[in-house]
Amino acid sequence: MIPLKFDSNGLLTAVAQDIDTGQVLMVAMMDAQAMALTLKTRQAYFWSRSRQELWLKGETSGNILDVHEIKIDCDRDAVLLLVKPHGPACHSGNTSCFYTSLDEQNAK
Amino acid sequence: MIPLKFDSNGLLTAVAQDIDTGQVLMVAMMDAQAMALTLKTRQAYFWSRSRQELWLKGETSGNILDVHEIKIDCDRDAVLLLVKPHGPACHSGNTSCFYTSLDEQNAK
Repeated sequence: MIPLKFDSNGLLTAVAQDIDTGQVLMVAMMDAQAMALTLKTRQAYFWSRSRQELWLKGETSGNILDVHEIKIDCDRDAVLLLVKPHGPACHSGNTSCFYTSLDEQNAK
Repeated sequence: MIPLKFDSNGLLTAVAQDIDTGQVLMVAMMDAQAMALTLKTRQAYFWSRSRQELWLKGETSGNILDVHEIKIDCDRDAVLLLVKPHGPACHSGNTSCFYTSLDEQNAK
């Protein structure tokens, strides 16, 4: 068995990557229930810190992430979800939440 | 200016991805100083929660991550570092820290 390391808030970091394009789509948090549901249903569930609730990604937008493989990192506190997205992963309509470049000039 | 959102511990999540292969290499945390140094030097600095210290990735191993581009996500609390690694990113000697598959059978 692989013991997952949840932090003091009961969360670990999840990175979703498109299994076909390699694009990193989003980063979110998972609690134990989100992880269990993701493993069971093969759709990505997260824990929303702002709403303090379990969240099936795409529940309202339809932009579900089908989870094809899950990798855990060496210190077991982060997971990589290799996914096929049903649509844009970002609520902004962008394919990925990482659509803004940061540099020394614009970082505050 | 793009205001970064550090959490209550003054940290944000950083994902390092190989800019050539697309492989996700590691996830770590950055504080404001790590971010400033990364932006300035174009080498990845992180904040080690276990050691409670600023950390130049590769300082001891030599496996520096050259940072070619930084993307920030839509809620500005996570960054994606597009890097060229000087060697294996994982202390285990693996190219990536995400070398273990997780499934319903082995997740505890």
